[in-house]
Amino acid sequence: MSDYQVINAGAPEQWHDVVSPNGARGKQFVDAGLETQYVGVSLNANQPGEAAARWHSHSQLEEIYLFLAGEGQMALNDDVIDVHPGTIVRVGQGVWRAWRALPDSPGELRWLCIRGGGADLKSIGHDADFDHDRPLPWAA
Amino acid sequence: MSDYQVINAGAPEQWHDVVSPNGARGKQFVDAGLETQYVGVSLNANQPGEAAARWHSHSQLEEIYLFLAGEGQMALNDDVIDVHPGTIVRVGQGVWRAWRALPDSPGELRWLCIRGGGADLKSIGHDADFDHDRPLPWAA
Repeated sequence: MSDYQVINAGAPEQWHDVVSPNGARGKQFVDAGLETQYVGVSLNANQPGEAAARWHSHSQLEEIYLFLAGEGQMALNDDVIDVHPGTIVRVGQGVWRAWRALPDSPGELRWLCIRGGGADLKSIGHDADFDHDRPLPWAA
Repeated sequence: MSDYQVINAGAPEQWHDVVSPNGARGKQFVDAGLETQYVGVSLNANQPGEAAARWHSHSQLEEIYLFLAGEGQMALNDDVIDVHPGTIVRVGQGVWRAWRALPDSPGELRWLCIRGGGADLKSIGHDADFDHDRPLPWAA
């Protein structure tokens, strides 16, 4: 798939204002506008204290979480790690993951989620599983 | 390739200080430290006026250029586009590309280059071509 495409997805300080088609605020799948072939990217911003609503994992996709601003945590199976600007996490298939901005983060947690899976993204389709029942590790 | 790995690649304001193994300043291939499977990422920072040393293209890889800060330009075959924080450019196979930070950029041009190609990155190997002779469009 040759040629090139350009979009403007907003500067990082605008990412939290974006509302995705499913109503979520602060998550923008830029590969929808770009119709990418192999690589997917979402731009994410969470205000202090905001957290993923649920765990998820992928059966085929590799994901790279790249943190740019703010202070937060990622849950990876039974582990919880702190994330800072510059933290990059590669998450392999089958690993359950979730995230949050720390309640006392000095600003929004801004990060990218980059994904790919050894084939056209369209041929992989939706490979995500969700666990709505597993408590998040920072739940009260 | 399951499981997860974490590295700290430095906050964006530190990216220009990184010197890559080939001596280039301001380019960090984070997938080397992470040993990613499908998705490669480099962190890039150019001071005002700094430019790519040469054009390049890829025969297999798709690349996504995601601009976070500063003002610059990308050359895409015969086109030159302006890039700003939030500009995202998908570049398909065979397209020749180069970039620069504008001489009067208000700060460093900071951006990511994300790549993938429908197979393990290791099986793709080095698919880049370079054109050392083609003048860059902003050359004096």
